[in-house]
Amino acid sequence: MRGVVMHAPGDVRVEDLPDPRIEAATDAVIRVSATCVCGSDLWPYRGTDKVDGPARMGHEYAGIVEEVGAEVSTLRPGQFVVGSFWASDNTCELCRAGYQSACVHRVPMGALGSQAQYLRVPLADGTLVATPEVPPADLVPDYLAASDVLGTGWFAAVAAQAGPGRTVAVVGDGAVGLLAVLAAKQLGAERIIAMSRHESRQRLAREFGATDVVTERGDDGIARIKDLTGGLGAHSVIEAVGTQESMTQAIRSARPGGDVGFVGVTHDVSIDGMEMFWSLVRLHGGPAPVRRFLPELMGLIGDRTINPGRVFDLDLPLEEAAEGYAAMDERRAIKTLLRP
Amino acid sequence: MRGVVMHAPGDVRVEDLPDPRIEAATDAVIRVSATCVCGSDLWPYRGTDKVDGPARMGHEYAGIVEEVGAEVSTLRPGQFVVGSFWASDNTCELCRAGYQSACVHRVPMGALGSQAQYLRVPLADGTLVATPEVPPADLVPDYLAASDVLGTGWFAAVAAQAGPGRTVAVVGDGAVGLLAVLAAKQLGAERIIAMSRHESRQRLAREFGATDVVTERGDDGIARIKDLTGGLGAHSVIEAVGTQESMTQAIRSARPGGDVGFVGVTHDVSIDGMEMFWSLVRLHGGPAPVRRFLPELMGLIGDRTINPGRVFDLDLPLEEAAEGYAAMDERRAIKTLLRP
Repeated sequence: MRGVVMHAPGDVRVEDLPDPRIEAATDAVIRVSATCVCGSDLWPYRGTDKVDGPARMGHEYAGIVEEVGAEVSTLRPGQFVVGSFWASDNTCELCRAGYQSACVHRVPMGALGSQAQYLRVPLADGTLVATPEVPPADLVPDYLAASDVLGTGWFAAVAAQAGPGRTVAVVGDGAVGLLAVLAAKQLGAERIIAMSRHESRQRLAREFGATDVVTERGDDGIARIKDLTGGLGAHSVIEAVGTQESMTQAIRSARPGGDVGFVGVTHDVSIDGMEMFWSLVRLHGGPAPVRRFLPELMGLIGDRTINPGRVFDLDLPLEEAAEGYAAMDERRAIKTLLRP
Repeated sequence: MRGVVMHAPGDVRVEDLPDPRIEAATDAVIRVSATCVCGSDLWPYRGTDKVDGPARMGHEYAGIVEEVGAEVSTLRPGQFVVGSFWASDNTCELCRAGYQSACVHRVPMGALGSQAQYLRVPLADGTLVATPEVPPADLVPDYLAASDVLGTGWFAAVAAQAGPGRTVAVVGDGAVGLLAVLAAKQLGAERIIAMSRHESRQRLAREFGATDVVTERGDDGIARIKDLTGGLGAHSVIEAVGTQESMTQAIRSARPGGDVGFVGVTHDVSIDGMEMFWSLVRLHGGPAPVRRFLPELMGLIGDRTINPGRVFDLDLPLEEAAEGYAAMDERRAIKTLLRP
């Protein structure tokens, strides 16, 4: 089969790779209908994360079940499925508490590489959620979004306790930040402030439910959020970048007793204890337990309540993955969908 | 009147000071029945916090209303009252959300100095809670505890979501940590693990409701908590020290999706972003909004359901304040009560 391999920062190739096979009785193999490039794939692409030799890429996927292992009981070939970027058993104590991304048997799907024609999915019963029927083609990007970027934005909004009567500020206008806006809207937030200085992203944020746009950053951005919230700060702040600047901006934009939900991978971020102490904010985040939300999100997609696939503004054949990475790196695209 | 003044680290004196008077129409002046030395008073005593010239000390108090300003409507002279270490209006948006320690009009009581015979309390209607009747003398230490150390331990337990079905670990065996054990018990926690290597404190922890005692610290302490929780970590961890070591121990002792409530004043603490990300814990803490809990806590004290005054193991006349500080500094006493 064909699949994406990163050889070095900036060096992404599509190559012939061995077809994945059932290795454990709990595995499934799926034919990938659509996959995509994640903001986190840019960390190694830009050299921020080290690349140790050729690495399979991709952890987001939606596709058709091709084959299942002997112990897989809830899935059958031909079903359309979506899974999280963590394989999880969905039965351990942490999974049952809604933290499937910390499943005691978790497997990072990135190690298996979803940017390919086929994908082996461990713990298939726990990991994959099937639609009632194979969906129409136009919904595939929406379902794909549920695999990570929507689920991650949704988790951020839940972690930030977005909901009725709350003002939500979103730091970060990447796909996750934009879908956190969508999530906050669905969760009933009263006011949603998107922080963005890019016109096309501002437009999408408004389409997803943003009521206000703040273009300022850093201290000026914090001051604007305070201005918009009676001097107190937002009830809920979503951090969807993962830098020191964005984390600081998020914590300082929240009111005392407010909530910061963070899902940006916190590279070189350090949170000052005294700042955290005096802020009186509640901080929660990390790798999103997308599996917790998948059934609900796939339902909202199936009945066309939400259209998270709108974040894919570049749609390429898998063979053109290199251009897909470059476009995101150069911020010419919000998010690239790849079709194997 | 007589009151405590700190002149330099280790130099605590009781001196003649001007009697406080009503300054604003919303003030009250109380005759202090009992006050005490806080763990946080040891920061300047030990030179960790800078002492800029002579400073009035003390922010915990219970006493009898002596005089009220013209606008005070809910209190009258002769009532026995307790207040938090923050004066707060209890009407602003942050107070109504339960964060009176971030009240937009808050006044730190430490600046006024409760280790004295009389105390001016700003925003008296919002700050002070009166008992139905002047309580018997043996309950005064319990009420005094509600002013900070009980309320702070209680907030830590609430912030850590201590409750039914949850295992709670408490890092820190000072008065706040011990009262966090009591709070966790009252809040219905299933299992309460006190981390302490001091026999007298272990005994008090067990009396307050601890089901287990862990004497190990650092990595060994974390490993013991994991052992006791099926390898997962505690659902709730309370941090009641305020050092890098204790904060790290707290975060690492919690399971993914668990909660860390921190109330130790985080001196020179820095929380690594990646550690926070991968931990998937929820972190909440800061200066406790004691006023939120005062009515409930005073009720539990009045009907003798709880006896938080047990943390005072040294009871001295105000004139002997210097010895009260020294005993706590040298860990000869858990907490010193001072009687003006």
